[in-house]
Amino acid sequence: MAYRALTEQEAVEYVRTLPGLFTPDAKLTSKEIGDGNLNLVFHIRDEESGKRVIVKQALPYARVVGESWPLTLDRARIESEALKIQHKYVPDLVPEVYHYDAELALTVMEDLSDHVIMRKGLIEGNRYPLFAKHIGRFLAHTLFFTSDLGAHPYEKKALLGKFINPELCKITEDLVFTDPYEDAETNNFNPLLREDVEKIWRNLPLKREIAHLKFGFLTRAEALLHGDLHTGSIFVTEQSTKVIDPEFAYYGPMGFDIGAVIANLLLNYAGQHGLQPDAEERARYREYLLETVEKVWTEFVSEFVRLWHQKVKERSANVEGFWQDYVENLLQDSAGYAGCKILRRVIGLAGVADLNTIADERVRAEAERLALAIGQALILQRRTIREGADLTALVQEVANTYYQEAAV
Amino acid sequence: MAYRALTEQEAVEYVRTLPGLFTPDAKLTSKEIGDGNLNLVFHIRDEESGKRVIVKQALPYARVVGESWPLTLDRARIESEALKIQHKYVPDLVPEVYHYDAELALTVMEDLSDHVIMRKGLIEGNRYPLFAKHIGRFLAHTLFFTSDLGAHPYEKKALLGKFINPELCKITEDLVFTDPYEDAETNNFNPLLREDVEKIWRNLPLKREIAHLKFGFLTRAEALLHGDLHTGSIFVTEQSTKVIDPEFAYYGPMGFDIGAVIANLLLNYAGQHGLQPDAEERARYREYLLETVEKVWTEFVSEFVRLWHQKVKERSANVEGFWQDYVENLLQDSAGYAGCKILRRVIGLAGVADLNTIADERVRAEAERLALAIGQALILQRRTIREGADLTALVQEVANTYYQEAAV
Repeated sequence: MAYRALTEQEAVEYVRTLPGLFTPDAKLTSKEIGDGNLNLVFHIRDEESGKRVIVKQALPYARVVGESWPLTLDRARIESEALKIQHKYVPDLVPEVYHYDAELALTVMEDLSDHVIMRKGLIEGNRYPLFAKHIGRFLAHTLFFTSDLGAHPYEKKALLGKFINPELCKITEDLVFTDPYEDAETNNFNPLLREDVEKIWRNLPLKREIAHLKFGFLTRAEALLHGDLHTGSIFVTEQSTKVIDPEFAYYGPMGFDIGAVIANLLLNYAGQHGLQPDAEERARYREYLLETVEKVWTEFVSEFVRLWHQKVKERSANVEGFWQDYVENLLQDSAGYAGCKILRRVIGLAGVADLNTIADERVRAEAERLALAIGQALILQRRTIREGADLTALVQEVANTYYQEAAV
Repeated sequence: MAYRALTEQEAVEYVRTLPGLFTPDAKLTSKEIGDGNLNLVFHIRDEESGKRVIVKQALPYARVVGESWPLTLDRARIESEALKIQHKYVPDLVPEVYHYDAELALTVMEDLSDHVIMRKGLIEGNRYPLFAKHIGRFLAHTLFFTSDLGAHPYEKKALLGKFINPELCKITEDLVFTDPYEDAETNNFNPLLREDVEKIWRNLPLKREIAHLKFGFLTRAEALLHGDLHTGSIFVTEQSTKVIDPEFAYYGPMGFDIGAVIANLLLNYAGQHGLQPDAEERARYREYLLETVEKVWTEFVSEFVRLWHQKVKERSANVEGFWQDYVENLLQDSAGYAGCKILRRVIGLAGVADLNTIADERVRAEAERLALAIGQALILQRRTIREGADLTALVQEVANTYYQEAAV
């Protein structure tokens, strides 16, 4: 069947024909629940059994700030294949793929509508006690087993070839690593921040470090990354965590995925400035967020190192002292990438609700300034970070200084 | 035509049918001149016009130390495509490809039989005054234009996908980066070196650095490398330099190619211990070799930086101070990879004639010990190297110490 965007009714008819999902005469309802900017997302439900699936279809364009540009349908293949690989390593943390259709650029997968988007949950001030443990394991297993540590070199190189993802990588290259650090048209920041942003544009040591991180993103094919692991790509309940939407998947530096998780927790940390009016509750929630950042790292690292000792395939990884070097470099990378991801959410095209829902733009600017300070510190001081606690101590220190100096 | 290994006569008939090379009734002679371990190489000559071509056909196996193992014919594709790309950037330094046949795994290319293999020329004590300038330009152009500096990200990623080369990379991964540093069956060293080699096997700081360099080889997709750029892959005359045999081509760290050139000049430097009996002439030739090493780097870097300033496509490469960082890291990488390539030629499966032609095995062991000392210093002290002169000064210092201590 040649590509065409499905209607709600066509989506129902499509899934009805697939083996193993519904009975031929099932009473199915269909509702398009996507935002329609990049993909159609149909929620299909069997009214009798209650069984539900998601049909996600890629659109051949992206609609951003009112404009529309063509975008490869190959991202549906990338996404479904990445989901399957991740599901193999952490089946409880990734939706199951039931079916993929290359022509229609469409994936039928497990429905997760009993979960909420984590970004929303954090904005509402909820806590997810199992999240750090889950995401640490997600990161450790998906990164380890697709890297030269855990995959045979032939297997790794075959995967690398499958996940060459030029168009979606280009979006990250431009919007995370380039445009925010110069006066680019795509930038979209609070006008009250102009002076702060112009200072960043003139900060050469910062820009040099970001250039190094960008070249790392461009060249370091370490593991199959999710590629866009922010809190909007994570579904949660108190008991469950599910990572979705890996259409940006490609072989890149491991720290980029770990940094994305850290960055988005810290964006919420900065956002608390305007999100939570009660000072004590704000302090407690921020403590929870920093604890979570630290736990994400410690859970990741303990699982990653366990796999290293038990499952490593690369002989030279057994050299004494090597894993310690590797893990320390990885933490520093993660901090650097977290910094870039924070800065771009304040300065660049795509904002985050953790900051954007702050209605008063003066208060929002204060929260954003704190985010900028944290992002820059993570990039410039990442080489001083030796363990997880150093990273959160650095954030704490930046926040303390910020509140002392700004007296806000 | 299904694959079969050609005879001399079949090679003649094959090239006769190709358009643009010979007239249909040309009197062609054919001679197989390869060593028959990996490839057939036919030298075809038109007896009347004197016109000559090379027909190189990959064999579906490799014959090493008496054994034979299967080896992908895809390397003929890799080689012919790499030659074409390199020829595009430095046409005078790479043989021209006239024809490639995927089924027969065969490439018809420019004949270079008026050149000599550089390793042989160096062993004979010849000097090649234009070599450093040529190879510096070869490295600068082929690495720059295939990297994210000089290629559009889509172009670079498409090339990356074309040059996934698992089987030949595996040979390097094992024989350059793993086996020589443990008691592996493939190793093949002078029995007089056993104590020195066992000391290397126990040298943890060295092995840790080599593990880092190996992971760089496995993951850092910086540019399309030649992949095997030793002096046996370089044809020279006093006036001309031609780089051949890029069947190991893949996307890897730039320093691996630069390091290969440096390593092989330094292997000859060590070999002079037994190759040149006259002490004064030996000192002069070693001075020539060190000057050449330094010039390879300075020629490379001046051309590379010129391209950077004039042709860079990656915007973030324009950040002030970035190219200086990049070039310094690249020199340190090159030193590290040079070190690995030196060590493996002494300890590992494949030796080099610069050492192996020393008939007296005691004298040979002395030359090899010097090579081991240089290789280790380049790996362990590479972070102290800031410019080309530092690298050659380090080699000089190691050699001085060696001769003082050994009093040989």
